[in-house]
Amino acid sequence: MKNIAVLGSTGSIGTQTLDIVREHKDLLKVTALAAGSNIELLEKQIREFQPTVVCVFHEEKAKELKSKVKDLAVTVVVGMEGLIECATEKDCDIVVTAMVGMIGIRPTIEAIKAGKNIALANKETLVTAGHIIMPLIKEKKVALLPVDSEHSAIFQSLNGEDKNQVQKIILTASGGPFRGRGIEELKTIQPMHALKHPNWAMGQKITIDSATMVNKGLEVMEAAWLFDVSIDQIQVVVHPQSIIHSMVEYIDGSIIAQMGVPDMKLPIQYALFYPNRLTMSQGERVNFAKLGQMTFEDPDFDTFYGLKLGIEAGRIGGSMPTVYNAANEWAVENFLKGKLRFLSIPELLHEAMKNHKRIECPTLNEILNTEQQTYDFVRGLTESGRYNR
Amino acid sequence: MKNIAVLGSTGSIGTQTLDIVREHKDLLKVTALAAGSNIELLEKQIREFQPTVVCVFHEEKAKELKSKVKDLAVTVVVGMEGLIECATEKDCDIVVTAMVGMIGIRPTIEAIKAGKNIALANKETLVTAGHIIMPLIKEKKVALLPVDSEHSAIFQSLNGEDKNQVQKIILTASGGPFRGRGIEELKTIQPMHALKHPNWAMGQKITIDSATMVNKGLEVMEAAWLFDVSIDQIQVVVHPQSIIHSMVEYIDGSIIAQMGVPDMKLPIQYALFYPNRLTMSQGERVNFAKLGQMTFEDPDFDTFYGLKLGIEAGRIGGSMPTVYNAANEWAVENFLKGKLRFLSIPELLHEAMKNHKRIECPTLNEILNTEQQTYDFVRGLTESGRYNR
Repeated sequence: MKNIAVLGSTGSIGTQTLDIVREHKDLLKVTALAAGSNIELLEKQIREFQPTVVCVFHEEKAKELKSKVKDLAVTVVVGMEGLIECATEKDCDIVVTAMVGMIGIRPTIEAIKAGKNIALANKETLVTAGHIIMPLIKEKKVALLPVDSEHSAIFQSLNGEDKNQVQKIILTASGGPFRGRGIEELKTIQPMHALKHPNWAMGQKITIDSATMVNKGLEVMEAAWLFDVSIDQIQVVVHPQSIIHSMVEYIDGSIIAQMGVPDMKLPIQYALFYPNRLTMSQGERVNFAKLGQMTFEDPDFDTFYGLKLGIEAGRIGGSMPTVYNAANEWAVENFLKGKLRFLSIPELLHEAMKNHKRIECPTLNEILNTEQQTYDFVRGLTESGRYNR
Repeated sequence: MKNIAVLGSTGSIGTQTLDIVREHKDLLKVTALAAGSNIELLEKQIREFQPTVVCVFHEEKAKELKSKVKDLAVTVVVGMEGLIECATEKDCDIVVTAMVGMIGIRPTIEAIKAGKNIALANKETLVTAGHIIMPLIKEKKVALLPVDSEHSAIFQSLNGEDKNQVQKIILTASGGPFRGRGIEELKTIQPMHALKHPNWAMGQKITIDSATMVNKGLEVMEAAWLFDVSIDQIQVVVHPQSIIHSMVEYIDGSIIAQMGVPDMKLPIQYALFYPNRLTMSQGERVNFAKLGQMTFEDPDFDTFYGLKLGIEAGRIGGSMPTVYNAANEWAVENFLKGKLRFLSIPELLHEAMKNHKRIECPTLNEILNTEQQTYDFVRGLTESGRYNR
């Protein structure tokens, strides 16, 4: 029996993780759940999975939940301290970090310090604090198992191989809903357009990131940390069918790839049971003849220059990825609120990066300060109205 | 330093193996070479690689070679006994079995018995005698390393995985030069047409087998032995670009694939240095954006019913694969001589299989007898003139 904590349990990855727990109740037990504010769903999850402790990030909502579940033997905790309590719950073996945003960094660090294995679904953790997380992972000898489909694919393509013989990583990208369009055509994009992803059903933030391809920029940085390669050893290839989830090219020219239908349950389950594979009975399988073709193209770095900026931020390193990520968080939130234009997202990333003076090896506090300063900077910029709809 | 014997050194796989030795003289030393009759090339190889012993299968040619190389300290041996001497030469670590046809079985068995690792490039060995070879491999604890690009791909896709979690093997096929044509269009095929393979530069026999897709039938049977799966766990998928060399699907629906440009040097080198990968500096690399697409289709079992018969022979097992293989050897040889029609090849396989009374677990002698009986049977059939051009 493996005990798991699911941080971000009401989101897309969180609910799919719990679907897997439901199918494997003989193998998995939930010890902790954490959510932002969706206490209706959280209550249902508590009643079904009976965790020891649950966290609600927002204080008011936590109070509400407390009164709803007072018939149960569950401890309700709150805020960042509560998140950390969930991440370090003593019986827990593996923490699924599926919360959105930089909020994930501290609980992840504390979980590692407490000797927990990490199923990493929070990109921001490595993007902003890879230089803190990776040495800690080694020191504490815990496993860091990627949940992202691309990183899971790379991880699987490295199975049984010598990492010194890696030539490069080929990170595939669907290209998002606007693949093939020019920058002129993106001027009028509304949130409802950007929220329609051709292959993957995901949360709102990541779906917008997929439309701008900023998501792929974050993934490049994450892959560099996870697999100890340089940014320049990572090549992004657009593959609209999302069947090849990513590949590794070795020094002999041999390429190992992992494929599957686009279904997040596969990488989540792989992370939870690694190194074992469990039968996925309900899942669809790839039928190559029916699929007919897989296509490939270079990314359009001019139209999707958020991706180009991400690669640049990764090359610069230090605190620059935090700036890239924070500016993007702020911009996406405000685009979704209808306040910003779609193309303002990369424009704001660019301005924030130009404005930032890089800290080479930022502490956690410096990372969080950089985040706040970036929020303030882009907010200030947008007050001019130049980026508004 | 690894000592290697190359059986079939003047053929396509043999010469490419020696190209790799030439590039890695610090790591590989040739102890033995064996060829059928091409003593001109063999002499050059002897002078360059200085083996201890060489075999020429044909006695007259062996005599000729002996006088040509009397200035050298090399022993020239002859026939099957000579081949076995090369395969078991005391200093040899790994035997590359790259001869064409069932002639490969006995030397392979003797090499295994002598504790040599096998780089297997001779399909017929496992197709006809898998039930003898595989237990022997286990007993002698030697490595059996596939050289065929498809089997090397499967082998690489199994790296670091639990073989009990394999769902199926997806064996890719280029479809050969006549992919997409109907049976009517194949009636007038001449050897010169069938010898033009779209992707691979190979020997004549295997190129014809690729055109009839009998090659894929043999590969299905070989894969079943090599990877301990049933014939029905192997799916043939036509992939004309020959970039994905084969794949393994696991029980969770995850598919691991190995890819590369179609170049036999990659799997040969992989087998010679396994588990290490060595830099392939001269080799071309896959450029996905330039490639643009990979396509997939089901095989046309009606037009290429030699493939269908191969799968059937594999299911029947016992001595039936020997009949399939021997009838094919004879038919291809006579097609290349201009005596038989292209479509007579599968017709003869079919007749030979219908005529044969299966031996469940044939001894080596029974295999060789079955081979001879099959040759005699198909020769007899063709005397009617019905199958002739």
